[in-house]
Amino acid sequence: MGSDEQAIRELHLTWIDAVNTGDLVGLVSLTADDVMLLGPGEMPSGRDIFSPRFSAAHEQARINCISELQDVVVVAEVAYTLSRDTLSVTPRAGGEEMQFAGYRSTIYRKQPDSRWLLARDIHTLSPVAKVRG
Amino acid sequence: MGSDEQAIRELHLTWIDAVNTGDLVGLVSLTADDVMLLGPGEMPSGRDIFSPRFSAAHEQARINCISELQDVVVVAEVAYTLSRDTLSVTPRAGGEEMQFAGYRSTIYRKQPDSRWLLARDIHTLSPVAKVRG
Repeated sequence: MGSDEQAIRELHLTWIDAVNTGDLVGLVSLTADDVMLLGPGEMPSGRDIFSPRFSAAHEQARINCISELQDVVVVAEVAYTLSRDTLSVTPRAGGEEMQFAGYRSTIYRKQPDSRWLLARDIHTLSPVAKVRG
Repeated sequence: MGSDEQAIRELHLTWIDAVNTGDLVGLVSLTADDVMLLGPGEMPSGRDIFSPRFSAAHEQARINCISELQDVVVVAEVAYTLSRDTLSVTPRAGGEEMQFAGYRSTIYRKQPDSRWLLARDIHTLSPVAKVRG
């Protein structure tokens, strides 16, 4: 495995850690200036939109994302990945845990200082239908 | 506008034309060997999965996609775009037209012969709620 692929795999882990711990500063530090995040029913959002949304989500719920990398492609200064994700959201005020599942396609850009940053992240996470006993 | 960006914009138009005319052979000729398509509730699909699905969809319905490019980034041999799409699906057997809206993130790869091909396509298209009179 090349060192760029290794760097992308580590960045993927660091990103998910930041998501799960609600570390907004850490999360933003992993993004390119023109970063764009997108999911079903959403408009593409840059830092100004996703930052307050991320903070509000963590205030209201405990969030746990499990993300399994399925594909990592590095082409010079660009890399793209596909991961299979599940997300559980547990309201802090009580109430039923919600579960989401889907895939996530991410594009990374290598910076002049050789750091990789996240530039685009598009997911298809949808609510998982509960099986009721 | 660079010639690579121009090529990507033309490929985007050609792709949508192939989608709307049900031209599977044309569509496949625009894809890289390892192409992967993905939408909400779907598994990532290569040619072997999406080809019969595309043909079946066109047998059952008239499909009209309108796709507006919002962002084109070219980095050497990789390009990525974001488009805003609407899709209308009209059953050939009669019945109500269904409408979908969302965004589409596409990754293209430049080939050794300088042609660009589609490598990844992830969309967030979801049913549009009808306003009932």
